[in-house]
Amino acid sequence: MTPAEHRSRPLVFVADLERPRLDEADHHHLRRVLRCRVGDPITVADGAGRWRSAALGSDLEPDAVGPIVQASERRRTTSLTVGFALVKGDRSELAVQKLTELGIDRIIPLTTERTVVRWDGAKAARNRERHRRVARQAAMQSRNLWLPDVWPVTALSTVVERLPDATLAEPGQTVLGAAAGAEIHPTTVLVGPEGGFSPQECAGRPLVGLPGNILRTETAAICAAVLLVLTAERG
Amino acid sequence: MTPAEHRSRPLVFVADLERPRLDEADHHHLRRVLRCRVGDPITVADGAGRWRSAALGSDLEPDAVGPIVQASERRRTTSLTVGFALVKGDRSELAVQKLTELGIDRIIPLTTERTVVRWDGAKAARNRERHRRVARQAAMQSRNLWLPDVWPVTALSTVVERLPDATLAEPGQTVLGAAAGAEIHPTTVLVGPEGGFSPQECAGRPLVGLPGNILRTETAAICAAVLLVLTAERG
Repeated sequence: MTPAEHRSRPLVFVADLERPRLDEADHHHLRRVLRCRVGDPITVADGAGRWRSAALGSDLEPDAVGPIVQASERRRTTSLTVGFALVKGDRSELAVQKLTELGIDRIIPLTTERTVVRWDGAKAARNRERHRRVARQAAMQSRNLWLPDVWPVTALSTVVERLPDATLAEPGQTVLGAAAGAEIHPTTVLVGPEGGFSPQECAGRPLVGLPGNILRTETAAICAAVLLVLTAERG
Repeated sequence: MTPAEHRSRPLVFVADLERPRLDEADHHHLRRVLRCRVGDPITVADGAGRWRSAALGSDLEPDAVGPIVQASERRRTTSLTVGFALVKGDRSELAVQKLTELGIDRIIPLTTERTVVRWDGAKAARNRERHRRVARQAAMQSRNLWLPDVWPVTALSTVVERLPDATLAEPGQTVLGAAAGAEIHPTTVLVGPEGGFSPQECAGRPLVGLPGNILRTETAAICAAVLLVLTAERG
């Protein structure tokens, strides 16, 4: 199937690609919101790059299911990561939605020294579930065959330990993507809270700037994602 | 005042910079949300680049008002415009908020052949008021001394007549900002509805691509804004 064909038909993730069965909410969305009819072509996929053609069924099981295809390759060879300091519920969800649409591969909600929003265990678990649901919907909507890896809320210190080349977005630094072929070519950008990263957090880490005025955290995360994808795509 | 000083204190727009008087809602926001105290330094500004230092007063009139300063120059010499096909209320507002934070100078909600959302006269007027309020809040929040010019909902045909170099964002085109010093250097980018622009609308117009997957309209508008600002800032 060509990219244009992928674009023109709905994409639905299923738990088991061998025996695909739509979630009830997805079936309802296709029928009631997108106004698809029984027999319309759809793509079912596993969120890890494998997919198959099918036709929308009258119940949750699709008809006319084609062979399983492994998408030959990802759009990019490098995996892109954006982390952002926790912001209140809907703004965190907005960031997850937009980062997924833009094709970011790994999304990390952060706690930092100056992060005001804190989630306790139960709330963190609820919000992780919510983030993953948002990412799933956004990936289907944007026809992304790969679901991003959405981490639970993680301390900055842990993130930089696990992703040693993580670059922090800081005002006043050379802007990411400002020059083609620039030496600054990060694949992981972390965005701080409204109060910024602390000097201790910045010490010894690569830093990068973002264009525009003072940006809210979720706007800075989206901005970083646009520039990461741009620089990755121009290779 | 240095940019760093501007960043560190609240910015409030006032109707009359000669005799500044805060809106009640702004005063309340400073006192209750930002927890400013009477006597704290603030900047009052007219949204057109003129500003003066002041101290927060106990009532709506600020104290210790300094001389009026005309900001010496804009951040950029070129004015940047983003238009986007109307989307439902909160998504249009989100676009206006983010475009303002990013420093876009002119924001145009569009109707196009395939735009599904339509606003009649009364609704259009209400929404324009709402868009301008959102832009005002976002400009204050991001310390932007210039308020963007937010147009009322305008037909695409009118926009391209008034801004003849307007470039349309279309899938499959060379990505905006993909190469430094590229010939594609638009200052106005228009984003279509989910169904795209019609072939008639695209005919004879400059076209440009955006990175990422299939983007929602508001995401595409934010993406275009990031890339416009990036290319304008790198000159």
